[in-house]
Amino acid sequence: MIVVKIGGASGVNLDAVCRDAAELIRQGQAITIVHGGSAETNEISTQLGHPPRFLTSVSGFTSRYTDRETLEIFAMVTSGKINTLLVERLQRYGVNAFGLSGVDGRVMVAKRKDTVRIIENGRQRIIRDDYTGKVEQVNAALLNQLIAAGLTPVIAPLAISPEGEALNIDADRAAAMVAGALKAEAVIFLTNVPGLLRHYPDDTSLIPTIDKAKVEASLSFAEGRMKKKVLGACEALELGVARIVFADGRIDQPLQGALAGRGTVIS
Amino acid sequence: MIVVKIGGASGVNLDAVCRDAAELIRQGQAITIVHGGSAETNEISTQLGHPPRFLTSVSGFTSRYTDRETLEIFAMVTSGKINTLLVERLQRYGVNAFGLSGVDGRVMVAKRKDTVRIIENGRQRIIRDDYTGKVEQVNAALLNQLIAAGLTPVIAPLAISPEGEALNIDADRAAAMVAGALKAEAVIFLTNVPGLLRHYPDDTSLIPTIDKAKVEASLSFAEGRMKKKVLGACEALELGVARIVFADGRIDQPLQGALAGRGTVIS
Repeated sequence: MIVVKIGGASGVNLDAVCRDAAELIRQGQAITIVHGGSAETNEISTQLGHPPRFLTSVSGFTSRYTDRETLEIFAMVTSGKINTLLVERLQRYGVNAFGLSGVDGRVMVAKRKDTVRIIENGRQRIIRDDYTGKVEQVNAALLNQLIAAGLTPVIAPLAISPEGEALNIDADRAAAMVAGALKAEAVIFLTNVPGLLRHYPDDTSLIPTIDKAKVEASLSFAEGRMKKKVLGACEALELGVARIVFADGRIDQPLQGALAGRGTVIS
Repeated sequence: MIVVKIGGASGVNLDAVCRDAAELIRQGQAITIVHGGSAETNEISTQLGHPPRFLTSVSGFTSRYTDRETLEIFAMVTSGKINTLLVERLQRYGVNAFGLSGVDGRVMVAKRKDTVRIIENGRQRIIRDDYTGKVEQVNAALLNQLIAAGLTPVIAPLAISPEGEALNIDADRAAAMVAGALKAEAVIFLTNVPGLLRHYPDDTSLIPTIDKAKVEASLSFAEGRMKKKVLGACEALELGVARIVFADGRIDQPLQGALAGRGTVIS
């Protein structure tokens, strides 16, 4: 099993990814896809008169401020649009894809961060109406049933809390949790850069390999959204995934490229 | 198995429906839900600057004009928002609901109506870029696998064509097809009226029972959207479903009420 995370940021060539996934699946490789949806959620929520807001936590991570209205827009865009269109595209390439989010059958149960300590104008403040969560449990049995039935799961970044609230979750870290639960041999994070760059956005500073013992040190130079992927990589390694690749999702055959070592390989 | 169709038109008390479904499931009754989403798609597509348009076919049926942009909005609203929020609400009542659309795992395969003959300003015209379909096949094996795993399917009104195009389908007729495929003993159509009215919108003209041999005659007086439900009922009867109820979705315990004969019962 290989878990592929497709970034929400524009630039990833979805057609190339789906064609390549279909080719690998024909060769007998099982694949599970996890996707994001930030860029499109920003666009549509702005069009709907509810523009995105972002929070910076005290530890320096940035995340979407997800009040209930934002959560519903996020569900609409990720689970309704991006997920359905990905499944449709894969089906067109002959892959029997099956879309779901973590809310369905409680596939991903997350703890709601009911209080988020943020920094705003240099001051600490607490946010209490945020519907963001951190995945704590993946229902591997249910995913494995779908996979055994010949389906390719395509997972949208929503989870459910033990209290039954739908939550926005980080897709990179969700991909890591899913990979751990499915005992995947690799996770490929597809982005719109060639891999992890020492000096973002300088493509020539691509780091080809990182020893897994040293991956946490990359947090110091990983830019913005890449920080979450590095965190995801750390979590996947802890869960026993042997190989993580940060790869370019804009190129042809991005998955076969990543498996051949193109990008940043952590192992 | 009972199939419940929840109308897209506003007025249905979703909380009462979910609470009642949870109660019936606790008593051992298997339920599959099919939902619509017209009213909310109209609102959101208008907000997104792509207001809804409707076609009237030469045979007098009205349907949404679904160009590709409308299809994507329809997927977003039905599969992303309405479906996710229904699943969330059912989960909160202890039902292990699982949302999907007919695109997922090719659960519903539909024939695309690639040319639609319509009446516009009294003239016949042909529409060619419409992504609407008529369900021809339901993957009962996959639905039964989900049901056997203790899940309650919640189905959004999208299907896939043999060519791999996502299609807008009529949820009433989809409910009939699903009921036939699952060999359901009953289909309950929940609406915002007490049942089939001889003189719409006069509530006192409710028809309590219809003999199944005479249901087609109801097409002559069924108003607008009720026509599709009557068609759905005819199709479900043909597929061997023994009992159809058109019931009020605004009341408390709407499902138990319908099963006890409240509404219009066709059998």
